[in-house]
Amino acid sequence: MSSLSSMKDNQVFLAFSTYAIIVILKMMLMSFWTSYFRLTRKAFANLEDTKLVSPTEDKKLVIVNPDVERVRRCHQNDLENVIPFVLVGLLYTLTGPELSTALLHFRVFVGSRIFHTIAYVGCLPQPSRGLCFMVGVLVTFSMAWTVLSTAL
Amino acid sequence: MSSLSSMKDNQVFLAFSTYAIIVILKMMLMSFWTSYFRLTRKAFANLEDTKLVSPTEDKKLVIVNPDVERVRRCHQNDLENVIPFVLVGLLYTLTGPELSTALLHFRVFVGSRIFHTIAYVGCLPQPSRGLCFMVGVLVTFSMAWTVLSTAL
Amino acid sequence: MSSLSSMKDNQVFLAFSTYAIIVILKMMLMSFWTSYFRLTRKAFANLEDTKLVSPTEDKKLVIVNPDVERVRRCHQNDLENVIPFVLVGLLYTLTGPELSTALLHFRVFVGSRIFHTIAYVGCLPQPSRGLCFMVGVLVTFSMAWTVLSTAL
Repeated sequence: MSSLSSMKDNQVFLAFSTYAIIVILKMMLMSFWTSYFRLTRKAFANLEDTKLVSPTEDKKLVIVNPDVERVRRCHQNDLENVIPFVLVGLLYTLTGPELSTALLHFRVFVGSRIFHTIAYVGCLPQPSRGLCFMVGVLVTFSMAWTVLSTAL
Repeated sequence: MSSLSSMKDNQVFLAFSTYAIIVILKMMLMSFWTSYFRLTRKAFANLEDTKLVSPTEDKKLVIVNPDVERVRRCHQNDLENVIPFVLVGLLYTLTGPELSTALLHFRVFVGSRIFHTIAYVGCLPQPSRGLCFMVGVLVTFSMAWTVLSTAL
Repeated sequence: MSSLSSMKDNQVFLAFSTYAIIVILKMMLMSFWTSYFRLTRKAFANLEDTKLVSPTEDKKLVIVNPDVERVRRCHQNDLENVIPFVLVGLLYTLTGPELSTALLHFRVFVGSRIFHTIAYVGCLPQPSRGLCFMVGVLVTFSMAWTVLSTAL
């Protein structure tokens, strides 16, 4: 375990850590985007939250708003894709891939998810969002394949 | 960290990697199942997606469909159970368990989630789905217990 | 990889494992809380589940119940925050932080999520829940910052 104390000896692991953190932070920012839309659109999920914009609790503010729901679907899609990327990517990193190959995987994935978010929240016409989703999935599948090939 | 470069020295880690990848891929396939049902049932979550099956954007196709929702609930249940399994399983693997014990955990979990999906999407009568869920949870609890026993 | 076989050589890793398991188990308990409310409130998501409390399948029990939805929103918030904590925390642990600093991060996060659950399910007035959420996010951001500083 002592060799785990330092990340500085493995370039692929350093790259993975950087890109994993970036894409996890991007995913977590969706929470704040949701909160921002709930406050500005005055559309809350809980009665007690309505007091944040109203002097008294107001049942009429416990409503579903399309902007809020769109950001939440984008957040959900992140959960469904970013977390598998990080988990598979960690195992992939441990197979000892080439740095250039690994960097290609990590960068394409992070790029695809940033464009996915822009396409989703910006309501861009399809298939822009679908393509971004597919690119991210294919990167994860490629890493999964490398792990299975190494393990079996 | 250099010792992380190769997965080939640890049988339990190789087994964990294989089963973790299998169950993550199974979880990711739910996205495609959802898309397939959205396209064939013509039930979309976003207005811009309706153009995939209609010449113009069609508000009437932004509806909730029970088949789509069922697959999505199954996907959600995977998120709630498969990700904890992979996270706890990684820590469990690092405690240095017996290969046979570890394989038993991993195989029972993967089997339970495959049957859970069949029971959910196939609308099998209860308690089939509930039992599959419980078996998976118990495997994760057993691994969590081993980690806590080792760490404390 | 052989050095991964034992967790006993790294105090920070032992601490991380313990707190990660605690907070993952807390998250998984939300599933049982949901099931408990579904059974006692008689509000199910699937027609086949209604047979658990009714002699025949009963469409009238496939309804949305506010208590069930509240627990589910709390579970969803856990997925959105606990999983990033565990993933970022694992990378953070590998940067070799001071044990006391690491323990502070882990303990504050676990505490914030336990109070978050109490505030959410107990319908405590805001900003109690919002503050608990923010504390947890700030802990994860702090660990993410440490990982990025070490990796870059």
